[in-house]
Amino acid sequence: MAVYTDVSDEELEAFIGSYTIGALTSFKGIAEGVENSNYLVHTETGPYILTLYEKRVRREDLPYFLALMEHLAARGISCPLPVKDREGRALKELAGRPAALISFLEGLWVRRPSIEHCAGLGQALARFHLAGADFPMERANSLSLPGWRALFASIGDGADSVAPGLTEEIQKELAHLEKHWPDDLPKGVIHADLFPDNVFFLGDKVSGLIDFYFACNDLLAYDVAICLNAWCFEPDASFNVTKARALLQAYERERRLNESELASLPTLARGAALRFLLTRTYDMLNTDANALVKTKNPTEYLRKLRFHQRVRSARDYGLGKT
Amino acid sequence: MAVYTDVSDEELEAFIGSYTIGALTSFKGIAEGVENSNYLVHTETGPYILTLYEKRVRREDLPYFLALMEHLAARGISCPLPVKDREGRALKELAGRPAALISFLEGLWVRRPSIEHCAGLGQALARFHLAGADFPMERANSLSLPGWRALFASIGDGADSVAPGLTEEIQKELAHLEKHWPDDLPKGVIHADLFPDNVFFLGDKVSGLIDFYFACNDLLAYDVAICLNAWCFEPDASFNVTKARALLQAYERERRLNESELASLPTLARGAALRFLLTRTYDMLNTDANALVKTKNPTEYLRKLRFHQRVRSARDYGLGKT
Repeated sequence: MAVYTDVSDEELEAFIGSYTIGALTSFKGIAEGVENSNYLVHTETGPYILTLYEKRVRREDLPYFLALMEHLAARGISCPLPVKDREGRALKELAGRPAALISFLEGLWVRRPSIEHCAGLGQALARFHLAGADFPMERANSLSLPGWRALFASIGDGADSVAPGLTEEIQKELAHLEKHWPDDLPKGVIHADLFPDNVFFLGDKVSGLIDFYFACNDLLAYDVAICLNAWCFEPDASFNVTKARALLQAYERERRLNESELASLPTLARGAALRFLLTRTYDMLNTDANALVKTKNPTEYLRKLRFHQRVRSARDYGLGKT
Repeated sequence: MAVYTDVSDEELEAFIGSYTIGALTSFKGIAEGVENSNYLVHTETGPYILTLYEKRVRREDLPYFLALMEHLAARGISCPLPVKDREGRALKELAGRPAALISFLEGLWVRRPSIEHCAGLGQALARFHLAGADFPMERANSLSLPGWRALFASIGDGADSVAPGLTEEIQKELAHLEKHWPDDLPKGVIHADLFPDNVFFLGDKVSGLIDFYFACNDLLAYDVAICLNAWCFEPDASFNVTKARALLQAYERERRLNESELASLPTLARGAALRFLLTRTYDMLNTDANALVKTKNPTEYLRKLRFHQRVRSARDYGLGKT
């Protein structure tokens, strides 16, 4: 839940007037997303999304994100397309913040993904990876292994207040991952945050992907591992192997995972679980109680991490190989 | 800022399917309003607003509010119109709460109303009062004089934590109002919460009124007094008499205020200021710090109250009479 920045009437009118999208007819803050302020804007030419980038997004990263959306849309991936103003600019400023107007994407995110939704996600993820292959810009993943170590250091002993013994457990897991993390897997542009609220569906069909503000260059299979975490556990923390199989099989119909990727999947899934365990722990310990943000429960990802620690091979995720 | 209730995929689909409005294509929580959960819904037939009524709205009052919107819309007032389902029902249930789908109203609320906006509001308010004259249902104002006394009792000495000496100041004001509150003024349906965020404009023209969930039967001039408080003070707490004159003159072009109403205007304005001072004080003292609601500053209305205490006649609000 967001919307942090108030926009004055005059600023808004001038901003919308800098585009060729007709007059403004409606402007409402959207109570979704936690990183940025998002507004649903209607003009005479239709609906748009206006995003004001709040401080957690680095201004120098914005050209990468906006260019990526343009690149993907040009390759047939359904995603928001930055709208250019009369002077051809996509990245602008509003109310003292970087801002962009993007096209409105039809569809709804699903609260409880079904097997069909997981298959749709797998296919969309693979197509996204293929479409990103020739994207020329580079952005390092600030939330990969070295980033986790730094984040852990900034949390300090606070983790024990989330769960007794958590500090030691994270310490051991980090050591394990630093020893076993693969570096010879296919790389490319990954979404890095493809949770259900970032994937729109119309019925069982994916209608688009949104929120590319964690996108970066990293191991493609790590993106798959993030999705296994985000899509294939039930609310009671049990792992739904049928959903995982549907996700992986649909992914592989578009892009085969090689033997090294499959062998590394349990390690990558542990890393993905640790990444969200760390960021959620950090957020829980560092969010002002008065902030209008609902922090997410870190222990959900502790339970997921422990599941992956017991996994022996990709077979446990529903794939027949290795 | 609201959206308190999560709606499951299945519930939402069944709910939308009970209407003849086509398939759902988008569903987003709106970060506005503090009493209810509001969603902006797009379907194949256009945009709608879905409201889930949270606990502060009494279920037994909902038929009054929904019937009022229908009554007003039938008389040419631009306001949301409840959509009826296949069985002709406007008031329904979703996610365990009373719910209604209403038509989407174009327009934007203005953050800083201009003189022209105040004139537009005055005209719209008078037309609303005239259109409500033959509305057959009745609802008492639970936040009128007796309600303020009860609210004050429930606040107790807590008011002094908002401003030193506030308890005594409210005590004196309540005694004054109980002595001078008029009861012989024209009555009818009032909106009772016509703040700028409940009035939509397209340019300088009012495009509609929303949020009738405080509407009730009370003194019409009290509604005018609420608007003087909500629209005619500047952010520095100064009273803008030019805006007040524009509001009142535009109102009077549609509906004349009689001599008694004009004479009572300062008293009514004091009452309106006290009403919002009391509810904001109560909310500030009773809102869980973890709640996703931004409480409003009560002292804004203390300063407005003190302004009205110094007013001698309607002349001070910019009208030439009395």
